[in-house]
Amino acid sequence: MIKFSDRVSDLHPSAIRESFKALSRPGIISFAGGMPAPETYPNKQLAEIASDMLIQSPVIALQYGITEGYAPLIEQTKRRLAAYGIKGDGNSLIITSGGQQAIELTVKALINEGDGIVCENPSFIGALNAFRSYNAKLYPVSMEHDGMNIDELENVLAGNSGIKLIYTIPTFQNPTGITMPLEKRKKMLEVAKKYNVFILEDNPYWELRFAGEGVPAIKSMDNENRVIYAGSYSKTISPGLRVGFLYADNELAEKAVVCKQVSDVHTPVLSQMLISEYIKRHDFDEQIKKSAKLNGEKCAFMQSCIDKYFPKSVMRTSPEGGLFLWCDLGEGVDSKEFAAKCLERNVAIVSGASAMPDISQKTGAFRLNFSMASGGSIEEGIKTISEVIKEYGR
Amino acid sequence: MIKFSDRVSDLHPSAIRESFKALSRPGIISFAGGMPAPETYPNKQLAEIASDMLIQSPVIALQYGITEGYAPLIEQTKRRLAAYGIKGDGNSLIITSGGQQAIELTVKALINEGDGIVCENPSFIGALNAFRSYNAKLYPVSMEHDGMNIDELENVLAGNSGIKLIYTIPTFQNPTGITMPLEKRKKMLEVAKKYNVFILEDNPYWELRFAGEGVPAIKSMDNENRVIYAGSYSKTISPGLRVGFLYADNELAEKAVVCKQVSDVHTPVLSQMLISEYIKRHDFDEQIKKSAKLNGEKCAFMQSCIDKYFPKSVMRTSPEGGLFLWCDLGEGVDSKEFAAKCLERNVAIVSGASAMPDISQKTGAFRLNFSMASGGSIEEGIKTISEVIKEYGR
Repeated sequence: MIKFSDRVSDLHPSAIRESFKALSRPGIISFAGGMPAPETYPNKQLAEIASDMLIQSPVIALQYGITEGYAPLIEQTKRRLAAYGIKGDGNSLIITSGGQQAIELTVKALINEGDGIVCENPSFIGALNAFRSYNAKLYPVSMEHDGMNIDELENVLAGNSGIKLIYTIPTFQNPTGITMPLEKRKKMLEVAKKYNVFILEDNPYWELRFAGEGVPAIKSMDNENRVIYAGSYSKTISPGLRVGFLYADNELAEKAVVCKQVSDVHTPVLSQMLISEYIKRHDFDEQIKKSAKLNGEKCAFMQSCIDKYFPKSVMRTSPEGGLFLWCDLGEGVDSKEFAAKCLERNVAIVSGASAMPDISQKTGAFRLNFSMASGGSIEEGIKTISEVIKEYGR
Repeated sequence: MIKFSDRVSDLHPSAIRESFKALSRPGIISFAGGMPAPETYPNKQLAEIASDMLIQSPVIALQYGITEGYAPLIEQTKRRLAAYGIKGDGNSLIITSGGQQAIELTVKALINEGDGIVCENPSFIGALNAFRSYNAKLYPVSMEHDGMNIDELENVLAGNSGIKLIYTIPTFQNPTGITMPLEKRKKMLEVAKKYNVFILEDNPYWELRFAGEGVPAIKSMDNENRVIYAGSYSKTISPGLRVGFLYADNELAEKAVVCKQVSDVHTPVLSQMLISEYIKRHDFDEQIKKSAKLNGEKCAFMQSCIDKYFPKSVMRTSPEGGLFLWCDLGEGVDSKEFAAKCLERNVAIVSGASAMPDISQKTGAFRLNFSMASGGSIEEGIKTISEVIKEYGR
């Protein structure tokens, strides 16, 4: 028995990552992953770019790169964010190995063991586990139909010392699919200012809107560099390339660079070049629009199947974008057991339990990804889940 | 002023990584980096593979992969290590984002703040900073002409509690280029056993031997999974792809996987496929041999230039492989100032100060990389350094 460090001794593999291994089972229908539809990957264009880069710029592509990231991609990313109202005064953008690393670097740089982080309840397990891996204390705040309950947030901040960070996924939240409206975003920023805490705005899905009106990022309203912005190309080009970014106060970004140096030195240059050249050579906005439209069609179809097969008592969210929706069977159902029963019938879902900041919290909720499966599989999978629901007498 | 976490508040950028930024200066001669010669990169072969993979296996290449790594590459790596006597019983191999990440995951999983790590003095700054970033306590042990002083190691272990790990680069050490002979490796393993500490064997250079006889890895003599082995494809195929590996006790490797999930989810699949297919399609051993031969020629030439231009009082090592040699001007020279003076004259070297586990330790030593520069540049650069040495009255 190895004695592990205190920070990770209780840390367990992400249920989502682990369920990923089951996905190679023949005939499995997966609503578990968080990836864009494979048919949207611009693989032919990327093949051409990869070949060009390795032939024309082999030393840049294969040599060590600087930790901050590939300069053209940094500039392109800043320009894209500026077009959405996110200005960079006093901020630096660094390229990270996926959005996940932007989260980890933030925690490593800011959080001492025992420091507090406010999280949406439920929230993204990858971030929750990153927080846990530095022994942060998690303060869950309820999600309402329109995002984090701001009154509850204020109570938590007023009643507890040592909180340094509010973690939020304001747009098409993982796992619920919920989007926080503008007024609530403003209030969150005000509250953060009042209690002098940072906001980590994790926004990997926001460009994948298929319904409703766009809402400005919290970062776009931030005039004192209080918002740390994590973004990603995983949901718009490819998750496998592992390219994300962190946009934050110069001083914080500089410290994140030092942390990244000891973590992986830099994000693979070829991955960064692929994204950069893709954006340069092709119509990235059109690609995102197509991808979002496809997701929207799949989401609408999944919702219609849910409404057809699930009992009316099952709550579901109505996302306007992103990759996920959230169902809740209510009390008396153990979501882990429920997910296991679905997997026995070859349908993979993510149990709500894995999204709870407080791991002892009971829940009958689960997350469904709607971007990956095809139409026929969506209906078959939802029907199968409905049969498992019946076993619970719902 | 942001209040950073205690673990990173005193952490500064790696001098090596920072000096990397100066390398774009026109006319600069760099002996600073730690990369293989660009002319050895198999870029054309990699271009073909990249295109093939993205066309033939787009979903594998661009989708999320499993955290442990791309299965074919794991098997290939294990086979290569087995051929060198490193058997895998009770061990698991995971792919990491460069060898650097193998080091960081080990520390994160094992070391509490204040736990001790024994390091060679001098040692690799990337590892030292990774240790510092978790507030480990560093115990430097002197380097002799044939590696770590084992008597001193035993004294340190006997005299201090809370030490969990010995960190060593036994072959073509960074920064000295020194290789530890078999007998000393055996003794280190015995001492580690006696005091019940782990050994982290960092071995990224060992295949790049151009003189002398191969020495077995410490891991190959380890019958109780005490040795954690970190390896890399950075020095044999390409550093920019960021592909390394960790080979360790099953239980430790499993915890490292959990840590990797929160860090970057997985190493980019395309990077892993490029390495895997390159090994499958081409004669990797021949490629390594060619690369080592070229390094050997450059090293010999650099040594002849040193012997021609430097005063006899300057100590230098005689590496049998790897990428670095180490020079020492002795007392009374501040290596940081010396490196800065060289950089003023457009020659980049790495100051010995950055390789000291104890940052307050004075040194007149510096590291020279011999793989990157061309012959003419090597002579010109060494001559320029010799002029700076003269300024110190040597």
